[in-house]
Amino acid sequence: MERIPILRMGPFLLVTIQVDMHDRLALTLQDDLMTQIRDTSARGVLIDISALDMVDSFIGRMIGNIAAMARVLDAETVVTGMQPAVAITLVELGLSLPGVRTALDVERGMALLTQGRDPQGQRGRRAR
Amino acid sequence: MERIPILRMGPFLLVTIQVDMHDRLALTLQDDLMTQIRDTSARGVLIDISALDMVDSFIGRMIGNIAAMARVLDAETVVTGMQPAVAITLVELGLSLPGVRTALDVERGMALLTQGRDPQGQRGRRAR
Repeated sequence: MERIPILRMGPFLLVTIQVDMHDRLALTLQDDLMTQIRDTSARGVLIDISALDMVDSFIGRMIGNIAAMARVLDAETVVTGMQPAVAITLVELGLSLPGVRTALDVERGMALLTQGRDPQGQRGRRAR
Repeated sequence: MERIPILRMGPFLLVTIQVDMHDRLALTLQDDLMTQIRDTSARGVLIDISALDMVDSFIGRMIGNIAAMARVLDAETVVTGMQPAVAITLVELGLSLPGVRTALDVERGMALLTQGRDPQGQRGRRAR
């Protein structure tokens, strides 16, 4: 199993990270995600990291990279399910994930993406 | 990371299996899923196995067990993303997953669950 599955949920793509990421897996995920964004015209990417108890600078950078790449392809990225300890570590590592929006769970993340793209152009507003 | 995350998607729960299952992980997943079904009053469970290139009798039985347990809690189970080789192996192992419905991807699986529970009582009908 050397791929992380990407699930299509309407106009969004959902990725659940549950395994330890190593270089090759991260690169494969990036490639697969960008290909899928193009092929499915996805408008958003949800990355659920609720299974991660801890995070290192490698994963932090990977998430930031994916968000930046997706943005170039006109898709927004929302990271969901971050555990408190992970949030603490990310900030301590100096990785505050600029440009990445977060939500407590996938449902809220999806609401955020749907809302962010509504016709009134409310993109980028914070979820309430 | 000794837990498989369970994502709530509206009235359904979504589980993506990407790691090799061993006994303890399977038991934890069963426990977590049943607790979540009760806590969230979930009406359906989607198990995505698109990351599995191969399957053994252990995983086959685990899926069958989860479906049977969920049914007792009044939730239906749909297995999605099964690869052709996995379907072949399951049947060869004599595990045709009775009582488990399948769909090609999560979107269709969700449609199947929604349709199966509609007010006209069309539960159990095959997806078209």
